[in-house]
Amino acid sequence: MRGIDVLVFDAYGTLFDVNSISQAVEAVFPGKGTTLSKLWRTKQIEYTWLLSLMGRYLNFEEVTRRALRYTAKAMRVDLNAEIERELLSAYNHLKPFPETVEALTTLYKRYPLAILSNGTTHMLEAVTSHSGIRNLFQLILSVDSVRIYKPSPRVYSLVMEAFDVDRRSVGFVSSNAWDIAGAKAFGFSTFWINRAGQTEEALDLNADFILTDLRDLERLLRSKT
Amino acid sequence: MRGIDVLVFDAYGTLFDVNSISQAVEAVFPGKGTTLSKLWRTKQIEYTWLLSLMGRYLNFEEVTRRALRYTAKAMRVDLNAEIERELLSAYNHLKPFPETVEALTTLYKRYPLAILSNGTTHMLEAVTSHSGIRNLFQLILSVDSVRIYKPSPRVYSLVMEAFDVDRRSVGFVSSNAWDIAGAKAFGFSTFWINRAGQTEEALDLNADFILTDLRDLERLLRSKT
Repeated sequence: MRGIDVLVFDAYGTLFDVNSISQAVEAVFPGKGTTLSKLWRTKQIEYTWLLSLMGRYLNFEEVTRRALRYTAKAMRVDLNAEIERELLSAYNHLKPFPETVEALTTLYKRYPLAILSNGTTHMLEAVTSHSGIRNLFQLILSVDSVRIYKPSPRVYSLVMEAFDVDRRSVGFVSSNAWDIAGAKAFGFSTFWINRAGQTEEALDLNADFILTDLRDLERLLRSKT
Repeated sequence: MRGIDVLVFDAYGTLFDVNSISQAVEAVFPGKGTTLSKLWRTKQIEYTWLLSLMGRYLNFEEVTRRALRYTAKAMRVDLNAEIERELLSAYNHLKPFPETVEALTTLYKRYPLAILSNGTTHMLEAVTSHSGIRNLFQLILSVDSVRIYKPSPRVYSLVMEAFDVDRRSVGFVSSNAWDIAGAKAFGFSTFWINRAGQTEEALDLNADFILTDLRDLERLLRSKT
């Protein structure tokens, strides 16, 4: 696409399927895999917002642990240390979406690729390495260096410090509507991967492009070159 | 209670029952009253966090409108201008909880009372006047003056500018666990009105006291004098 100089990807939910966590949950809490992993994810994101707004910071591993503890308590399931460790480690072994590897491999030939994520560097290195795509990324940027979470502009600023480009020429790719809103507010060109047909936020910060998956993104960028 | 010099109340969900909105919703969208009003409320709060974190501000009337528009779209119901106006105005006519008036009337004799809320001054004046409790409050403090939402410390700071007291001697009363966490992080003495038996947040910012309703708060404060 004319004008896009670098592609920056959100990780969780965009490249990696956080729902694959539900299988790990199902294995230890039969019948509760879907509900528990969904609430866990909701709470995890909520805690990133709340802590950031309070001016406090716990890293994403710790936030994920706290959200899991809340969820287990709310759903009245017994979370011992071993199960907790096991479920948290599932976060480092998330599966990429079916089209992730192929789409990134193609895009990699034409754009510098980066990740900008709430995850810690440790988590992001682990999850990209385990799925064999680490080397496709020129940079992995973690909020951990600014100690505040998305959608704070301080997070999106990390891209500007890393690449010498205009905001508009950063193609930001996320499956989270609120992340797209934050990136749009910051001034990036935004590509919303809306796999589940979700509703757009009503904040006048809509995505520049709405796509169904990463293959669709690759196709769009090819057609517009 | 020894050491409490002023009582500061959250409004929505604490003094006023936001679920009473569901009746207004039910009247225009039969069968969807509960689900729609619940999603509306969730989105409303989510938008206050997201905008604050982006460094943007829309007042609570506008946030409530945007959240309603999102919800209507997500639930595929037809929201015309008239219905929108009607549902938004329901926010200014929320019912107090059954024990609110009596408990406040008793507490009023012993403490200066104030409200600290996400609502605009206009909304808060309207909802307290309609339920006949406006005069029980010495002050109504709105986030509108700092243009950021709870749980930002800038919001809780409004109390310190208004009353010449220590943080610990501010008794902060809210039914929202995350609001309690924010107030606790700020340094207030916190009273969580947990009507629905919700789970505490797992942020190490727990309430000093957990109560079932405002009558329970009145009883506690009386017993500890």
